[in-house]
This record gives sequence, structure tokens and C-alpha cells, in this order.
Amino acid sequence: MDGKVRMGMIGGGIGAFIGSVHRMAAALDGRMELVCGAFSSDPEKSKLSGKELFLNPERVYGSWQEMIEKENRLPEDVRMEVVSIVTPNHMHFAPARLALEAGFHVISDKPLTFDLQEAYALRDIVAKSGKIFALTHNYAAYPMVKQARHMVSTGTLGMIRKVVAEYPQGWLSSLLEASDNKQASWRTDPSRSGIAGSVGDIGTHAENLLHYITGLNITELCADVHTLVEGRKLDDDANVLLGFSNGARGILYASQISAGEENNLRIRVYGEHGSIEWAQMEPNSLIVRWLDKPIQIYRTGGPDVCSASMACTRLPSGHPEGYIEAFATIYRNVAMCIQAARSGKRAEAHYYDFPGIDEGVRGMEFICKVIESGKSNQKWIQWNT
Amino acid sequence: MDGKVRMGMIGGGIGAFIGSVHRMAAALDGRMELVCGAFSSDPEKSKLSGKELFLNPERVYGSWQEMIEKENRLPEDVRMEVVSIVTPNHMHFAPARLALEAGFHVISDKPLTFDLQEAYALRDIVAKSGKIFALTHNYAAYPMVKQARHMVSTGTLGMIRKVVAEYPQGWLSSLLEASDNKQASWRTDPSRSGIAGSVGDIGTHAENLLHYITGLNITELCADVHTLVEGRKLDDDANVLLGFSNGARGILYASQISAGEENNLRIRVYGEHGSIEWAQMEPNSLIVRWLDKPIQIYRTGGPDVCSASMACTRLPSGHPEGYIEAFATIYRNVAMCIQAARSGKRAEAHYYDFPGIDEGVRGMEFICKVIESGKSNQKWIQWNT
Amino acid sequence: MDGKVRMGMIGGGIGAFIGSVHRMAAALDGRMELVCGAFSSDPEKSKLSGKELFLNPERVYGSWQEMIEKENRLPEDVRMEVVSIVTPNHMHFAPARLALEAGFHVISDKPLTFDLQEAYALRDIVAKSGKIFALTHNYAAYPMVKQARHMVSTGTLGMIRKVVAEYPQGWLSSLLEASDNKQASWRTDPSRSGIAGSVGDIGTHAENLLHYITGLNITELCADVHTLVEGRKLDDDANVLLGFSNGARGILYASQISAGEENNLRIRVYGEHGSIEWAQMEPNSLIVRWLDKPIQIYRTGGPDVCSASMACTRLPSGHPEGYIEAFATIYRNVAMCIQAARSGKRAEAHYYDFPGIDEGVRGMEFICKVIESGKSNQKWIQWNT
Amino acid sequence: MDGKVRMGMIGGGIGAFIGSVHRMAAALDGRMELVCGAFSSDPEKSKLSGKELFLNPERVYGSWQEMIEKENRLPEDVRMEVVSIVTPNHMHFAPARLALEAGFHVISDKPLTFDLQEAYALRDIVAKSGKIFALTHNYAAYPMVKQARHMVSTGTLGMIRKVVAEYPQGWLSSLLEASDNKQASWRTDPSRSGIAGSVGDIGTHAENLLHYITGLNITELCADVHTLVEGRKLDDDANVLLGFSNGARGILYASQISAGEENNLRIRVYGEHGSIEWAQMEPNSLIVRWLDKPIQIYRTGGPDVCSASMACTRLPSGHPEGYIEAFATIYRNVAMCIQAARSGKRAEAHYYDFPGIDEGVRGMEFICKVIESGKSNQKWIQWNT
Repeated sequence: MDGKVRMGMIGGGIGAFIGSVHRMAAALDGRMELVCGAFSSDPEKSKLSGKELFLNPERVYGSWQEMIEKENRLPEDVRMEVVSIVTPNHMHFAPARLALEAGFHVISDKPLTFDLQEAYALRDIVAKSGKIFALTHNYAAYPMVKQARHMVSTGTLGMIRKVVAEYPQGWLSSLLEASDNKQASWRTDPSRSGIAGSVGDIGTHAENLLHYITGLNITELCADVHTLVEGRKLDDDANVLLGFSNGARGILYASQISAGEENNLRIRVYGEHGSIEWAQMEPNSLIVRWLDKPIQIYRTGGPDVCSASMACTRLPSGHPEGYIEAFATIYRNVAMCIQAARSGKRAEAHYYDFPGIDEGVRGMEFICKVIESGKSNQKWIQWNT
Repeated sequence: MDGKVRMGMIGGGIGAFIGSVHRMAAALDGRMELVCGAFSSDPEKSKLSGKELFLNPERVYGSWQEMIEKENRLPEDVRMEVVSIVTPNHMHFAPARLALEAGFHVISDKPLTFDLQEAYALRDIVAKSGKIFALTHNYAAYPMVKQARHMVSTGTLGMIRKVVAEYPQGWLSSLLEASDNKQASWRTDPSRSGIAGSVGDIGTHAENLLHYITGLNITELCADVHTLVEGRKLDDDANVLLGFSNGARGILYASQISAGEENNLRIRVYGEHGSIEWAQMEPNSLIVRWLDKPIQIYRTGGPDVCSASMACTRLPSGHPEGYIEAFATIYRNVAMCIQAARSGKRAEAHYYDFPGIDEGVRGMEFICKVIESGKSNQKWIQWNT
Repeated sequence: MDGKVRMGMIGGGIGAFIGSVHRMAAALDGRMELVCGAFSSDPEKSKLSGKELFLNPERVYGSWQEMIEKENRLPEDVRMEVVSIVTPNHMHFAPARLALEAGFHVISDKPLTFDLQEAYALRDIVAKSGKIFALTHNYAAYPMVKQARHMVSTGTLGMIRKVVAEYPQGWLSSLLEASDNKQASWRTDPSRSGIAGSVGDIGTHAENLLHYITGLNITELCADVHTLVEGRKLDDDANVLLGFSNGARGILYASQISAGEENNLRIRVYGEHGSIEWAQMEPNSLIVRWLDKPIQIYRTGGPDVCSASMACTRLPSGHPEGYIEAFATIYRNVAMCIQAARSGKRAEAHYYDFPGIDEGVRGMEFICKVIESGKSNQKWIQWNT
Repeated sequence: MDGKVRMGMIGGGIGAFIGSVHRMAAALDGRMELVCGAFSSDPEKSKLSGKELFLNPERVYGSWQEMIEKENRLPEDVRMEVVSIVTPNHMHFAPARLALEAGFHVISDKPLTFDLQEAYALRDIVAKSGKIFALTHNYAAYPMVKQARHMVSTGTLGMIRKVVAEYPQGWLSSLLEASDNKQASWRTDPSRSGIAGSVGDIGTHAENLLHYITGLNITELCADVHTLVEGRKLDDDANVLLGFSNGARGILYASQISAGEENNLRIRVYGEHGSIEWAQMEPNSLIVRWLDKPIQIYRTGGPDVCSASMACTRLPSGHPEGYIEAFATIYRNVAMCIQAARSGKRAEAHYYDFPGIDEGVRGMEFICKVIESGKSNQKWIQWNT
């Protein structure tokens, strides 16, 4: 069996921010094609979205249950192979379970699930299914993040002593959810987002990035979690002190009321001999500072970058690659793995470099620990111990 | 008739840099699909490329002549509608002519043709064909370039007095063409590249960007054109003084021996009241400096950007968009125009914002004038007068 | 009485970093002249320093007690008017007391004293003396910090919701104090530095800057204070969560083991409508980000800066002013006040814009609260309530 | 004989920009003291300036002739030793001659003289006098410029192929000289400034910097010299193509109508193996880009900088040094040389690293060549051949 990987999408109707990102990411490298979708819980809207996406109308479904059921009846070389789930948090678990149990691979947006119970349950389901499960913590897929991880893991910086991961945004500086803002509305609604606002939406990205680059486990944390915009139901600012298993200390913060900030995820990792700094908004540079040598800047596609970084670089250096490209690397890697799996093979090892169920479960635990700490008078909350 | 625009590709076999860029650009927005190709003058290589691109083997051709001929015999709703030409310069004209005369739309890489004669001839052919012709001067498609053009054309900066456009690269600092470097090899070969090296390859991008943003015509120029790497057959460094129709002065330079530079196209435009600066390697910021106000930075997707800029922005601000995204905007716009043209309509006006035959002819004239000036002892060479 | 302000110096012998800074700062604006000194507890070294500074040998003293005593006997128009104290922390209080009680004005390096008790005592002594007391929290003297304070205090940003002040350095990444490093040696020695290392040395600068710009009082804090270099006796890394009286939240950190960092004091202040960012290493720019307008960059000496900022700007914009210039502003202001005080007058109000005894006491309280919190299992420590 | 170097000043009355800069530069390092001055051609204004500078009224003179004459009659250990000339261009030569012939050392602002004839004459006078003559091309005195020069001269970059030196300012974007602007008034007046406006005022700085860093001689140039503000009498924008003795090519431009630019002197030097970039507005970083290694950033006071750079660094890295500090290095070096000369000795070699009469003559020739080329229809004007 040959050809592009056939993908179905759940959620992400026209107008949704993240659905469109997933589609561009899937399309970019020419290894996936969108063949069907259940784009909205409103069948009419789903149809309309399918039409604008030039899909065969017969494969645009009124519900994800219908999609999974009907696609499963199509011939093996026609039916979708992987489901992309781009719904709000409360609608991650059920479709993921059904899809996995029906034998489809799954790509899901983050955080993994609505709550920790679902997360643990999903972990079992994934394990049992034997299917590929990918979670779109896209920021770890930038080439310079791979280089950062490489420099830490090969010991170039020496033992890590300090980590600072920050993720300020400003778009929720006013009570946007009171107006008709789709993005704000579900993210600030406990019934759809879960127990956390900014901590779940972007704090988990920061935690994932930190863990991906350093490999360190947080063993204790102390969180200050607040809602600074009056009338909001979930946190919009969280500042967290961290302790790591190797004795390193750290700070992580997530904020959506940092007025004027766009999407300023940034991480600094300090070792004995030097440090690295990476900022999502200038993603093609990795700044490396040394105790006893001039500063260095590694560049996407530039000299001396590691093979993991080159494996997700599409252009010569100086041709900026961005957010969609990093997102697309997850899709490309999943596609390679699925294509190999068609004939029972495994893709080359480096294609398995995408976040999966374990990262998802860890993210959900992180949310719970931070929220718990935020409510506690106890200074340190233990984790991973 | 409905559906994605069906595209065939000429050149761009696996391994070619720019062919892959065109394919990603075409795929990104989900409006074009690659349905056929003649990827190499070697039929075997062409087949191999087609296979890796998951194409129907029957639509992978051994030559572009064969492709145009055979596609033309396919049913109207199956055959390709547009040809993407991504071959070296000497192979732009012939396939473009044949495709246009066969009734296909054309997207071509730049510079337009091998020489000026071909350029003028192609202009007539395009005019006669009534088909869409797009030239991938991709840098003018960045959102912040649209904003720059907007600020100049609405008079915000006052009358323009000075323009500095620079395009340093370093990759040809050694005699790469003596080794087996495909990119270097044809670009430095007069029989495939034409009379110019760096001037044609990147100088034309700088000229296009300058003209797109300012709308000014160069009326005189004085060029210092050199080959600084011994053994090279075409120019690798060109510095040009400019005079404009409105009295403004300027500098444009293109260099491929600026060791350490990646792809550093940068432009500054100075008016009576303020100036703008844009750099391709940080494409999502437009710096605006004023005589009497604090510096401003406009951002892709950020506050107060013009509608032309928003029309080619895919993500919220802070989610970096890069080179492929800008390239894709040309493909998206062309696709919109072709989809409208299917039923004899015109797309909304702003979709026609892509470089076409006139930009291509102007670029070829620019090459000729610069090379002529470079050889001349006369200080100023007139143009556009 | 007329002429430059006559200054004596305690500490700061040749080779000392900060003594030389104070001398350059005093000299820059031509309002102070160094007339005498007790540069070292070793009289020979003091003499040598005096000679290299071209001082009259008779006014180079073997001890600060001797200097204060003998200068006091000189004619009024000859003797020093102000004492600059640039010794380690444990030698701030005694000379300051003696100088004030002898009728001299005092400029002291920070932190104010060895411990809090001394700080409170010195506050009383200053009050009783009626003399000018200045503390060199020099970072608040940068022109763009004045502009930042102005933008907060005039309400441009709206109510402040979040503050992030960070101060990473890397120079203590190894156990420098084990070698013969004068700077490291006393700063890491509890008998000379006091109860704190990085918290006192640089954390107090961050606290001062934060308070100067925002005017906010910290009402609760939660600190993670650590020594990451084995064998060190005082903290070298401290991460602190903050709560402010108006409900705002914040983070402050000081680190001297952030390998590769030079002197990267940086502050971000987020209000309802926008935010400001200032970094000491690029001190002539103030970045202002808005919810609904393009980013602005205010520049030292540039358009639209406030009068307090212009009052400490010496050059047209684009001529970089640095660390010494900011430091010199404190000296210039003190000199203006002393010159006025000679005839019982007060200088113009804006010259009193320098840190004094209150800032010093607050800094000492800050040290105590952070160190206390660092040792506590209780989450929040109250302050200023 | 011992003590600080005693300096007299010609020009630079209160309110003058550059006089104040020279005074701060002289004072900073504590090796020079201002002892007398003829600050204005108006004796009253001169007195007033002297008073504000806390000078002995008897040594504040009504004319520079008077100052030179009367100081010469003072005892050797009292009278001034060096004259600092900070008048407009047309008043450089006469006081310099008189001072040198009277046996004083001279520090002069740039450009050297009003015209080339004066320049050649002054060269002879300096030679005959045996006195120190320094010209304040201050930009070459930044630590990172020393590092740049070091990297070129030691061959690290390989043979130099391309140089781009640019100096845009915007402050003359309107006809400031029509209002009461002292700075604009003489700089745009041919009777005080000479044959050039921007070329003399700032173009010479760019030429000096270029020559200092690269050691290359310009052998041919082609200039486009214009006045873009109507009513102005001298050039305000000049763009120049350069050829160098070793075959390298280059661009140099000076502009004072580049609206929004502050003082953006910037230079890039490209060799076979890599390149350096330095910008005056971020003077403490030197960016080094390599063909085959990651980018490096050398920092003032940071690791691996050359001894010439360290010799003019006053602070640990991360404590920004600026314009005044660089200016002060010239004064410090001259002071060291004068102090040595008092007893017929020479200072250590590195203190002679300041621009002198040869740099001044070369600058005047540069002005003449550029202005000549600007008026010529001939493409290339020869120089240094």
C-alpha cells in the first residue's frame, strides 16, 4: 500500500484558528491529505466547512461518531488512517478513545484531556491499541529546540543548575469571553477547558519545552495562581518556582494578561559552563553564552547544527521557518511512521521524535500540581518523587 | 467546475531546493494540488521524483513538451490548469510559451527569462494568451512588505528621498561551482543563467522589492559589478547607485561573496517625515522611525496593519510566519484567480496582488542596465526615461 | 562660597572595581572633585592610590577615622564636603555615622549596611544630621528608567497587574572566592557581606528598580533561595514570587550562577493597556507594547521623552550613554543639592531624584524578608502591611 | 613634574554640544583637568562659560590668541599643556598653528581643517613642532572597534573582499538652519564648514573607521552627492562606490536626511572566511559571522578580546560603555603621552593609538575626492595611487 496518509479531522471548522493550523501543517510536506472531517457539532456548519476545503461531500460528516463509524466501512485503501482532533479540551478524550478503538491512529491537540482521570484512562487505551498517538506540543518541534536539547544532552553546558521558562501573552487582558470571541470563550470556561486556564493552555507548552530540552523532572513546585481580570472563571496568570531532581532550581510562568505580549514563549537553561536561550518569536536563532568564550548564535540550517535539527529543517539558513513549519514537522513525522506501519515496519528512529501519550499525561499532572499548589498554603508540592 | 486548482510542475526534481519550495507553497493553503510533473530532463529521474511525491505514475512525464501535450488531451476537469516552471533561467521561456499557447496558466520562477529578447517576446505571448502569468518574486509577499508599501503609498512618510536596498549572501564565497554543487553550478554558468550572476539571482529580488514598496522608477544608475572569486564566470558582487524619477537617490547592492551572511535582504526607505526598515530575516517586524515621534514596530497580524497585509496573514501575531508562507501567498492568490477564471469571473481585486509579466520584464531590463553600467566608463546609465 | 563640590573617598583603592566607577561618576559632569581619600585599611596602599590619583599626599589618609578628623580641621573652603563610601558592606555603617556626625554629606554604595539593625540606626542618624545621604542604586538613574516611571505614574499603562524583574549574572558560576578574586571574596563572606549573597548584591538593585518604576509595595513574598556552587557560604541564586498592595503579582530573581550572563538586569511591567520593558544592557531603549497599537520604542534623548528623563541625558539620541553616565547622574544631582545647601538653599526639585536612606532601609528589609522566606516552609511572608 | 595634564579649551561655550563632550571626555579618567579657556569669540559669553565651569576667572580669556599668549607667560608647572579646539571647521587651523608654534600640544575636533591647503600646511607645522596632535575621530576608540581591527589585521577573516560603511542621520531632514539651530547653522554654511556638508561632518568618520579597521586604502571612488532639502547650501546625502588597493570593493554613505535615524554609523567587513559587523548604536557587541561556524558575538570586556580592546575598557562586560567613554579614551591616551613627554619619555606604545595629523589629512583628501567625484561625469576618481 502506497500514497499519502489519509487524514480525517474532528473539529476545526472554517474560522477556527487551530483547525486551520493543523490543516496547513498536514499539507505542507505533501505526505498527508485531508480526506474527510466532522468539523462541527452542527452538521450544517460541518458541511459548509467541508465544501470550502474541497472535500468530497459524502465524507463530510455531521458528527465524529458518524465519521469514525462510516469511514471504518470504507475499503482499506480509501478510508482515513489517522484522526486529527482539534476540539476544545473536554472533547479530546471521547473521540480519541473511539478512534483508537476503531483502529485509527490519532493526532490530538493539547492539553491531553479534560482531567487527569481521562488522561490515565487514555494512556491505557493507547497502549492497548498499538496505534500511534501524537500530541501537538508544537514548540518542541522547532529546529533550534532540537539543537538546544542536543547541547544539553551531550553535556556541552555541564550540569544544569537553573531553568527559566516563561510564556507571556496579552490577548486575555480584557474580559474577551464576555464578547463573542470563540477562542476566549471556551478557554476560560471550566466546563470545556478543565480546572485551568492559562496553566493548561500555555503553561503546559512551557513545561513540555522545558522537559524536552533539559530532560529534567520537576520534583517540587510552588505556584502563585491568580485571575487578574475581574469576572473571569479560570486563572490567567501563574508564576511557579521549581525544583528539579538533580538539584537545579527554576522558574516557569504562564500569563495571558501580559498586555502587549504576543506569544512570547522563551526558555533559558543555565549549566556549569554556559547557557542557552531560545525564544519562540525569533525561532531560528539559538543563543549560547559561555563562561569563557564569546557568545555563539546557532541558526536553523546553519553551520554545526545537530542532525536532529537538520532533520526538521526545510530551507537553507536565512530563509525563515516559522510556526507552521514546526507544527508540520509533527505531522510529517507521524506520516512517516504511519506509512512505515502500513507494512508492519518502523520508520527511522528520528521520525518518532514527536510528543505522545506520556508527554500528555505529564502535562495533565503538571496542571493538577500547579492548581493544587496555587490553592495551598504549603510552600512546596512534591511531584515525580 | 469546482475543487482545488490542478498544477503541473516543470523541473524541481527531488533534491532541488526551489522545486520543493514551490510544492510546499502550493500545498500550504489547500487550494492547489500537484497532479503531474516533468521533474527532470532525465525521464528516469522524473519518474523517481513523481513516485516520491505520490503522483499517479501515468502523469509523471519524461519531458515538459510531453506533459503539456498529453495533459491537454485529458478531460477538462482532470487535466492540469496551471504549470509551475522551476527550471534554471535558460529553461523558462520555451516551456512558458508552450504552456501559455496550449491554454495553461503559468507560474514561473525568476528572473523571467534568459535574456531581454525572450522577455519582450514572452510579454507579447502572455498578453495574447489571456492567461494568468505569475513570477515568484516571493519577498514582496510578506505581510510586513505590504504594510511598508501601504505606508509609502498613503503618504505617511512624506515624499521619498532615499532608498537603500541590500542583499548580501555569503554562500558563493568559494568556487562552489568547481565542486558538485547543483545550485552554484547553473547560477554561475552563462549558458544557463544569462549575462548576470548575483545581479540576476538576487539583485532582481532587491529591485522588485524596492519598486513594490516605493512605486518609484529608477531613472539612472551607476553600477560597480565584479567577480571576486577567482575562476568564476559571472558577477558575484554588484554595488549600484540609483537615481529616481522624483529626485530621490538610492543604493542597491547584491552580493554572494559576503561571507557569513545568510539571506539578508533588507530595505530602508526614507521620506520627509520618517522611514521604514524591513529585513527578510526578521520578516514579521516593520520598523518605522519618525522625525518627531518614538520608533514604532508594526507586527504581522498585530494592531493597525493594513488590509493588504492582513489578507496574507495566516496566524495571530507572535506566531512567526516565514519564507514558505510568503511564497504560498503567491500560489494562494493565483489559485483564487484561476478558480474565479474557471467560470469567467474575476477574483476580488486584492488577489491580483502578485508579480507578473511586467515585473518580469522590468527585472530583465534591470539586469541589462546594471551589467551595461558595470562595463561602462560613463557614470550614469539612463533607464525608464 | 563657590566651586566644585569637594569629595573624599573611603575605600576604592587602585584596582577596586567600584571605587573607580565612583570616581569616574563624580568626575564626569565637572561638579565634583576628589580632594582626599582613605583608600585602604593599609596606609601604604592608600598612599599609593592617592599618588596614582594625583592627590595632594597630605590629604591621603591611613584610615577613614583620620580622614574625617583631619579634614574637619581644614578651613571650610578647603575641606571635603561629602564622603563617598565604597567599602564592603560591613564597613558602610561606621564611616557613614562618623561622617554624618562630623557634618559631612555622604554618598554610600549599596546595600545600605551590614544588617537591618544598622540600617534603622543609620536612618535616625541621617535624620538627625540634616545632611544629604545618597545610596548608589545607579540603575534607577538611567534616562529610560525615568521614562518608564513616568509612563507608569501618569497612568498610561493603566493599573499595573504584573511585574517581572530579573537579574542574572554568571560570574560566580565557579568558586571564585577560593582563588584570589577580591570581588568574589568579600561578596561571598558572611562576615563582610551580611546574611545574603546574590540577594544583597544584586537582588536589592532589582527591588529598587521595581519600586522606583512602579511605586508599588511588595506585601507578600515567597522565596526560593539556594547556593548552587558547592563550598559557597552565601546564596548565589534566589527566585521570589511577589504580591503587591494593589493586587498585582510578580516575580523577582537574582542569580550569580547564570553562566554566560553578564549583567542582565531587566524589568517588565504590565498594565491593563500595555507594558514596558527595559534592559540594563540596552539601556537607551524603552520598549512599550500596547494592547491595541504598534509597539513603540522610546529612546534616550529621543522624541516625546519626559522631562525627568531629559534632565539626565547628556547627548543627542543615538550617542549611547551607559553605566557610568547613569552613575554620574546620582553624583551630579547630589552635587547640585550640596552646592545649593552651601548657602542654605534647595536645588530644583528634580535634583533630589536620587536614592537615599529610605531606599536603603527598604533594601535591607527586602534582604531580610527574602532570606527569611528562603528558610521557611510557610508559603508567604508578609511585608509592608 | 607630576600631576594631571592641564588643558585649555578653545570654543565649546555652555550650550555647545561638542564642547561639553570634550570636557566630559577629558574629565572621565581623572588624568586631565581643564584649567583655562577661550570659550567664545564673545568675551562676555566666554566669562560666563568659565564661571559655570568653576574656572579661575583670570584664566578665562576673551580670545584664543589671548589665551595662548597669556598662558605661555605663566610658570611652567601652572600653564596649560594642551589645547582642545572645538570650534567650527574654519576655526581649526589658525588656533592649532598658533598653539603648536607656542609649544602646546593640540587636540582638535574633526575634520582637520577648512580646506585641503590648510591640512597640508598643518601637517608641516605639526611635524616641525614635535608636539602631540590628536584628532577626535572618536568612533575608532570603541573597544569593539579595536577588536574588529585586530581580527582583520591578524588575518582571521582572510583577505578582505568587501566593505560597507554607512552613516545615516536624520536630524537635517528639514531646513533647520533657517531656524535658530546652532549645530545646523554652521554645518550647512560653506563659509564655516568648507566645501562639504554631510561628507565632511560624518562621511569622514565613516572613512576613518573603515581605514582604521581594515587598513585598506581607497584607490578609486565614484560618488553621488546631493542636497535633498531645498534651500540648503551643502550636501546632505552622499553615496559612494569604492575600490581598494587589494581588489576589494565597497560602499560608503553619509546622510543627514535619513529621517528617523539617530546616529547610525555601522560597518561590515567581509573577508574570505567570515565577516564582522559593528554598529555604533550597539557599540559593545561585535558580530562575527563565519562561512562554516556559528555566529559569534564578542563583547566589550568579555572573553577572548584582544589587548588593545581591553586597554580601553573600563568596566566588566555587561556594564554598557558608550560614546563619552570612547571619546575619553582619546583624551586618556593623549594624557598618558603628554605625561610621559614631560620628562622626555614615551608612553607605552598602545597609548599612541589615537588619530593624528595623518588621519586628518587623509580625511580632507577624502572630502575633496568625494566632492570632486560628485560633480564629475567621469565614473571613477583615482586616489592614493
